[in-house]
Amino acid sequence: MTITKQVQPKKLKGFRDFLPHQVSQRKKMIDVIWRHAVQAGFQAIETPVLEYAETLLGAGGQETDKEVYRFEDHGGRAVGLRFDLTVPFARFVAEHQGTLVFPFKKLQIGNSWRGEKPQKGRYREFCQADVDIIGVDSQAADIEVLLNILGNLNRLVPASFTMSIGHRKVLSAILQHAFPGLSATGEACALIALDKTAKIGVEKVRQLLLEIDGATPEGADLLQKILSSKDAAGDSDLSILTRIFAENEDISIEIERIRQTLSVLRGLVSGTKARVRLDLNIARGLGYYTGIVFETVIDQLPGFGSISSGGRYNDLVTRFSKQSLPGIGGSIGVDRLLAALEELGETENETRQGIFVAVATADALPYAFHIVDELRNGTDEMVDIGLNLGKLGNQFKYADRRKFAKVIVVGEEERLAGTYTMKDLTTGDEVRDLRRDQLLLNMKRR
Amino acid sequence: MTITKQVQPKKLKGFRDFLPHQVSQRKKMIDVIWRHAVQAGFQAIETPVLEYAETLLGAGGQETDKEVYRFEDHGGRAVGLRFDLTVPFARFVAEHQGTLVFPFKKLQIGNSWRGEKPQKGRYREFCQADVDIIGVDSQAADIEVLLNILGNLNRLVPASFTMSIGHRKVLSAILQHAFPGLSATGEACALIALDKTAKIGVEKVRQLLLEIDGATPEGADLLQKILSSKDAAGDSDLSILTRIFAENEDISIEIERIRQTLSVLRGLVSGTKARVRLDLNIARGLGYYTGIVFETVIDQLPGFGSISSGGRYNDLVTRFSKQSLPGIGGSIGVDRLLAALEELGETENETRQGIFVAVATADALPYAFHIVDELRNGTDEMVDIGLNLGKLGNQFKYADRRKFAKVIVVGEEERLAGTYTMKDLTTGDEVRDLRRDQLLLNMKRR
Repeated sequence: MTITKQVQPKKLKGFRDFLPHQVSQRKKMIDVIWRHAVQAGFQAIETPVLEYAETLLGAGGQETDKEVYRFEDHGGRAVGLRFDLTVPFARFVAEHQGTLVFPFKKLQIGNSWRGEKPQKGRYREFCQADVDIIGVDSQAADIEVLLNILGNLNRLVPASFTMSIGHRKVLSAILQHAFPGLSATGEACALIALDKTAKIGVEKVRQLLLEIDGATPEGADLLQKILSSKDAAGDSDLSILTRIFAENEDISIEIERIRQTLSVLRGLVSGTKARVRLDLNIARGLGYYTGIVFETVIDQLPGFGSISSGGRYNDLVTRFSKQSLPGIGGSIGVDRLLAALEELGETENETRQGIFVAVATADALPYAFHIVDELRNGTDEMVDIGLNLGKLGNQFKYADRRKFAKVIVVGEEERLAGTYTMKDLTTGDEVRDLRRDQLLLNMKRR
Repeated sequence: MTITKQVQPKKLKGFRDFLPHQVSQRKKMIDVIWRHAVQAGFQAIETPVLEYAETLLGAGGQETDKEVYRFEDHGGRAVGLRFDLTVPFARFVAEHQGTLVFPFKKLQIGNSWRGEKPQKGRYREFCQADVDIIGVDSQAADIEVLLNILGNLNRLVPASFTMSIGHRKVLSAILQHAFPGLSATGEACALIALDKTAKIGVEKVRQLLLEIDGATPEGADLLQKILSSKDAAGDSDLSILTRIFAENEDISIEIERIRQTLSVLRGLVSGTKARVRLDLNIARGLGYYTGIVFETVIDQLPGFGSISSGGRYNDLVTRFSKQSLPGIGGSIGVDRLLAALEELGETENETRQGIFVAVATADALPYAFHIVDELRNGTDEMVDIGLNLGKLGNQFKYADRRKFAKVIVVGEEERLAGTYTMKDLTTGDEVRDLRRDQLLLNMKRR
């Protein structure tokens, strides 16, 4: 069947192809994350890329809702592409409650989609690696998730980085302290404003705050005073909060928990590239967080944005289930991290490796395939074969461009004699009349 | 923020969640395929899940077009979810022609989507592992792709299986011989009818053929006689074709090529679970094939359908590029194969493994995390930690259900003494007062 219609080969804006060297780097990254999460007792799951629209919408906030790729499927159902791995995971937990062992420690690595404006390191299709613990609300679970992420970033990032930790519930309490009786909507607006502090500065945040119904100039002063107070270590000053919320048992417990979490994490990552700090300005945009929240920046790339973020979401499963199942989770933005490493100038050096079997004549093909099959099964070397039959020049050019280390030529002569000629592409040396056993001796044995 | 709206936790029809034991089995399968394709010189790429609709539509035939998930994105562009990995790959090749080394040997493992009727082992979201070679039209390339697939199926399928090979161009020539002057549409209808031979039988195929404009009863007799002739080995009888097409150089070359491909592949897989046979009835549904085509069935599961299929597509890249780049490719249906293994009763035995560190009191948490971190970094064991602080009974229940081999209890006593109690969950044995060095001696060292 001949295909005549000519189509322009182009990708959608914000979407990318990955060339072999990029996939190879990404695969290594994913393998590291996978291995260490599984070693720490996390269990990998997968969920569909498409979900009912009602599963996705309303869980991540209005901004996120707008970015969801939505459509009607063949059966007229309203569906959408997942915008993160957390909301489908909450649906998963509610659906499989009966068979999972709680606390359930989840690992999921996969793509999500958002129709947002593409920026440097930000794409409409992006890969994230998520670890989550669901079914327990304890500092142990918080530490376990953050420790796994810090450990993996230590393995993957060749530079120092800082994880900034905030707390949604404590931040809400501070807002209520500054603006007594602030409505839920007002609080949400204030969180969005505060989240922009690093980007637009304290003065502009103040202006945004004063536009909120129920906010006062005095309250704004108080709020900004509390949030900008730092202790000797440069953390948000918890001693002020301890005083303000002395009578509030709920918040006092959270403050104590933050203290222990910070202290344990710092003990565990001391002497590594990771730094952990407390910054109560951190709010995170997504609607579902209820406790600790965090984001992570490579110190040399402050403008690049967060390479890993997450937080505690104690009410998300309630959306799908009558049973309350508190959760905490964090993502490593695999594609953002790859872009960051590129920005840092970290690229892999390709060294020559593997064996290319060049086929001199079409008649030698069966014989050549036998050699190739034997080398593949008996060694760990990469072994490729010439596919442009008879065109030896082309085959050598291919072997050189693909950076093979050695070329073995197989032709009629070699087939009859049962010997080989081997050329080293690094040194240019050529060895003739190699016997089969001599050839195998040269290779990494399986 | 409280989320109040209650949503029914459900998945779309034809879509699945994967539980940890399923993901683990699938991951092992993908790792095997990945490793051996890379060892054979294939290079992994990735392409977006979403493509312009015009890239996808019209390439796979009318039936496939109907199944594509299509919609308008935020920018009003007509887009679609890919229905296979081959059509986006042709777009990829046309777009990256300048940077790829040809012949380009591609590996891609990922999901595709089709809105077709879900059946046993057939889902609307499915994972395939594709190997393709583009830029050369030679039997060497055909053999290389089929050999890689046969090798991987030998590693993954615990039973005998048969790869049936057909040839689209030769089949067309036979059709033209039987029905001289048959139109392209008539030929397409005949291919669809012939493809059903195994399912509906020779008599019903004959009825379908006779409905085609240009088909005659005599031609149908001749066609079915040629296609049902077998040689001594049970293959489609090439000697008849050699005679019929003696004057047709083009087809004679193809027949010779089929002969060599079969002979080399048989030599390489002899003594394994793989059987290779020639069956010229095989047409394959997709519109883009031009040469050799194949499908593969597990012998014990004839009704289960093909677990691996593909073929040569010499005109597909022409859709996107003025330069002609012939290609051959094959998929292993990862999800279909998993379903087949389940059908064969192949499931993994879970043995107890790893260490669970139970935390007796909240105060012992920092100490417990240090032990856990040391064990994770110093050994290859899976090491998990109790997250339900203080509830030792719950923690032991979790360790048992997650099938850990050993539990170490860490409490105030242990912290002060610097020793541990270790319980073997297989034997029930308990060892008290273990020192740290004794503890590490018990583990698989990194």
